[in-house]
Amino acid sequence: MAAEVVLGVDIGGTFTKIGLVDRGGSIHYEDEISTRGYETIESFIRALHSHVMGRLEEIENSVTLLGIGVGAPNGNYYEGTIENAPNLAWKGKIAFVKLMEDQFRLPVLVTNDANAAALGEMLFGDAGDLKNFLMITLGTGLGSGLVVNGDIVYGHDGFAGELGHVLVYDHGRQCGCGKRGCLEAYVSATGIKRTVYELMAEENFESDFREIPFSELQPKHITARAESGDPIAILAFERTGFLLGRALADTVAHISPARIFIFGGLARAGKWIIDPAKKSMEEHLLPVYRGKIDIVPSALLDRNIAVLGAAALIWKRLDQESGD
Amino acid sequence: MAAEVVLGVDIGGTFTKIGLVDRGGSIHYEDEISTRGYETIESFIRALHSHVMGRLEEIENSVTLLGIGVGAPNGNYYEGTIENAPNLAWKGKIAFVKLMEDQFRLPVLVTNDANAAALGEMLFGDAGDLKNFLMITLGTGLGSGLVVNGDIVYGHDGFAGELGHVLVYDHGRQCGCGKRGCLEAYVSATGIKRTVYELMAEENFESDFREIPFSELQPKHITARAESGDPIAILAFERTGFLLGRALADTVAHISPARIFIFGGLARAGKWIIDPAKKSMEEHLLPVYRGKIDIVPSALLDRNIAVLGAAALIWKRLDQESGD
Repeated sequence: MAAEVVLGVDIGGTFTKIGLVDRGGSIHYEDEISTRGYETIESFIRALHSHVMGRLEEIENSVTLLGIGVGAPNGNYYEGTIENAPNLAWKGKIAFVKLMEDQFRLPVLVTNDANAAALGEMLFGDAGDLKNFLMITLGTGLGSGLVVNGDIVYGHDGFAGELGHVLVYDHGRQCGCGKRGCLEAYVSATGIKRTVYELMAEENFESDFREIPFSELQPKHITARAESGDPIAILAFERTGFLLGRALADTVAHISPARIFIFGGLARAGKWIIDPAKKSMEEHLLPVYRGKIDIVPSALLDRNIAVLGAAALIWKRLDQESGD
Repeated sequence: MAAEVVLGVDIGGTFTKIGLVDRGGSIHYEDEISTRGYETIESFIRALHSHVMGRLEEIENSVTLLGIGVGAPNGNYYEGTIENAPNLAWKGKIAFVKLMEDQFRLPVLVTNDANAAALGEMLFGDAGDLKNFLMITLGTGLGSGLVVNGDIVYGHDGFAGELGHVLVYDHGRQCGCGKRGCLEAYVSATGIKRTVYELMAEENFESDFREIPFSELQPKHITARAESGDPIAILAFERTGFLLGRALADTVAHISPARIFIFGGLARAGKWIIDPAKKSMEEHLLPVYRGKIDIVPSALLDRNIAVLGAAALIWKRLDQESGD
């Protein structure tokens, strides 16, 4: 019998990753196409369709495609739209699901990448038995997927879970959203890089960072320098973890999750970010929550969580329809 | 036919209010008994039972009692317990629901008073059609009930929704919980009173407050003095509303509610607290949420929301069982 699969699509600013994912989380085929290469959403969807269909024809006897789940910046689950995504060329409010369903003639669901990651952890990672948990994605920005009573929190308008934009400091760092002092201006790959330069101004420690222009520093190099004992790198992680933990304590006061998963480039720093975050979270928690909640790397840290999570959108819907 | 009613019980530090509430939200009988007068939970429950049963015998032909809903400080919906409530004489983790069911031989549910207020607004107030909303109770402290996808957010451990203890200022005011800088140390009846004295230290305005010792100022008098133009009272509301709105913007980034209800003594100040809170919330919101969310007084502000909300716990359960 042909394996039943779902197409997971992760739309990023530069590339769009795709994969055919079965209910067990095995990826039968994965690939990527350009995002930037298509000026209109219609041309992008046509290209995606011909790419996927071409591949399906090659393997048509071995799989049955049930639907398409999509993770996209500013993807709105309720409305099936992508709305004013800052990193995409397609502006305004795009009727994405309708356009996709017209092209593919299959059920399509969309949400943002952090919600998709939370669903991926639920169906294919370590959150399987948890009805209340939090996913934090630490990439260029800080994304979040909140799970309450077993479901993603979409909120009234489909845009819930923007923890990257809770307030850290009044009149703080300029954020890409137009506000100042948002969490993601401090806790993200770009946030920790800003902290490295802040610390070079504040402290007199010798550091290799003093030889590197701001524009050239890759955030991933900060972890390597912390490992080799650079005091600026170590302090940068401590300060970043402190602010992450302080913000997470407030999130716990909202939804009291069983566990907090972190994912993304900065999550690969492991103990450097997790240890100070845990310490700070515990210090800031109301006593009733203390000692109960772990911060752990996603089980899918080394797998394609974005594609798995996008596919999970459809698999979760199918599970619900079958009464699971 | 006898009217079907639910007993709503609101356990406060001093008095326990009770009422028989039908599905339409009409209270057929209400009364109160002492809370402080009973040193053990067992003696309290026996007194409550004989009080209610005595009354039911008088009206036994006109009502049928279906269950008992209870709002209590630190009431845990999942476990049916009251755990280390600071204002109650009964210490430790009390198996409250079990003790009540043994005494009354009826279904009993418990939660905290802010969650009960949110349920009251849902079943008997203005939140009937809303699947995502927030209830803030502004009394001696600041309580909150979060509603997501039509259900109260209890969280992993039953203790979600403690927005009174999110951080406002690092190293800020001492809070009753042991932490410093919590929201309820600023935004509550006692919080605004502290702000009045802070403002007398900061500013040189003439004010009647300068004649009143801290220990004697009743928070409700602050509204009257704002009405009569006292600059300290007006500034105290502006500062309190600013901090409330700033905190609410962060809560919106978590759950994106359709509407925010406020309830309790400080909510009676109306525009004095709501106008600066709205202004500040809008200023601090991510653009995608702006202009969408209203802050309004509870529809039950002049009714017994605590008893109605406690009763709503049982009515909501019965609605769910009947597939409504």
